[in-house]
Amino acid sequence: MLKVIAEDFIKADAVHIVLPFYRELVAATKREPLCIAYDLFVDQNDPGHFIFIEEWPDRAALAAHCATEHFTRLVPMIDQHKRKDAVYTLMDNALAKTTNSI
Amino acid sequence: MLKVIAEDFIKADAVHIVLPFYRELVAATKREPLCIAYDLFVDQNDPGHFIFIEEWPDRAALAAHCATEHFTRLVPMIDQHKRKDAVYTLMDNALAKTTNSI
Repeated sequence: MLKVIAEDFIKADAVHIVLPFYRELVAATKREPLCIAYDLFVDQNDPGHFIFIEEWPDRAALAAHCATEHFTRLVPMIDQHKRKDAVYTLMDNALAKTTNSI
Repeated sequence: MLKVIAEDFIKADAVHIVLPFYRELVAATKREPLCIAYDLFVDQNDPGHFIFIEEWPDRAALAAHCATEHFTRLVPMIDQHKRKDAVYTLMDNALAKTTNSI
């Protein structure tokens, strides 16, 4: 199991532009057969700070997601409105009895 | 619904000390009646970077969690081994049709 936090930082005046792109990206990603979880949140203290919380079976599934038509089309459209680079954190369950790094 | 990311930064040589405290904290918190989700992950690139992904019905439930016996006892024991202050991000669903800020 691979847990991912992906954080986007969007210019304040472009939030209304990116929201439809995010909506399409989330809907299409949830239909990917290997997607376990893919939900988008927004920081209560920063309306341009968007946070994906994702779950994938492994890194290969994440790589396949990043190669989909919807990802490669929509993410560059979103990135046009970023105020700084995205931050990605790939994580394992911290309390698993055995290592599950993948 | 309130989503929370709580990030702890623990000294590398103290990870083995805090893990039992985290294990007890997660088990006890999952038994809180208002806890929807409370899971602990670790950054694949930083074994001292621990990330809670939490879900609560509202801020009052989060405040009640922070006042429990297990929280007020275990968090200071964990914090003794921090290398820098924790970071908390409180979030709303970004794609909800109506505002759900609480």
